[in-house]
Amino acid sequence: MEITHIEHIGIAVKSIEESLPYWEGVLGLKCYAVEEVKDQKVKTAFFMVGQTKIELLESTDPEGPIGKFIEKKGEGIHHIAFATKNIEGALEEAASKGIQLIDKSPRLGAEGLHIAFLHPKSTGGVLTELCENKQK
Amino acid sequence: MEITHIEHIGIAVKSIEESLPYWEGVLGLKCYAVEEVKDQKVKTAFFMVGQTKIELLESTDPEGPIGKFIEKKGEGIHHIAFATKNIEGALEEAASKGIQLIDKSPRLGAEGLHIAFLHPKSTGGVLTELCENKQK
Repeated sequence: MEITHIEHIGIAVKSIEESLPYWEGVLGLKCYAVEEVKDQKVKTAFFMVGQTKIELLESTDPEGPIGKFIEKKGEGIHHIAFATKNIEGALEEAASKGIQLIDKSPRLGAEGLHIAFLHPKSTGGVLTELCENKQK
Repeated sequence: MEITHIEHIGIAVKSIEESLPYWEGVLGLKCYAVEEVKDQKVKTAFFMVGQTKIELLESTDPEGPIGKFIEKKGEGIHHIAFATKNIEGALEEAASKGIQLIDKSPRLGAEGLHIAFLHPKSTGGVLTELCENKQK
């Protein structure tokens, strides 16, 4: 598949508000958007770092994926998202090469991206998102 | 501090060789360098993705940091490294703002970069590396 860059790195936090003093105050990054993704039971906050975004993920429901992740592993890096030019083709290729897909077809994620996750069992323990910006 | 981009993402793997079918064969990335960092008891493999590198980290000693990480948490994302223009100033600023430093002053890392780690206890669970390329 053709990956152009790292679209974002998703980081699970207990509270976006309580995380800002580190991301903005220490690292000097600027939060440019906060968005709730109800489907994923998260509130997200975005920071641009070069061509890649940092996406802080705060759970809005203890039973959601981020709530469960934090309960099990604590705060920390949750996933890496790679930007592709053809997400349907990329998923098809991954499946044909034996990768277990969490999403068999793309769905809408934050910022209107078409996204799909690969299972970390197939990717060396790295929860991996593929995404395509079809609005460009 | 001034961060220009994400220099690399470090990923702990049991075996670089066994990881290549995923990173090269599925994702289509190209390993451009393999380097041993004896100080850190790791062998590293680098892939360029846009302006950011993926750094696979294979332990060369079960008592080294990656060996211990994998024993405790399994394979997966290990750290994020941010490129700064002035690593000494960045460390000083982080310390002055209450961040716990793993490295109080920079040391040499892979690819000749000057690097220093911040403790994940101070950074929301994200093991964070700052680095500066002084060869540029």
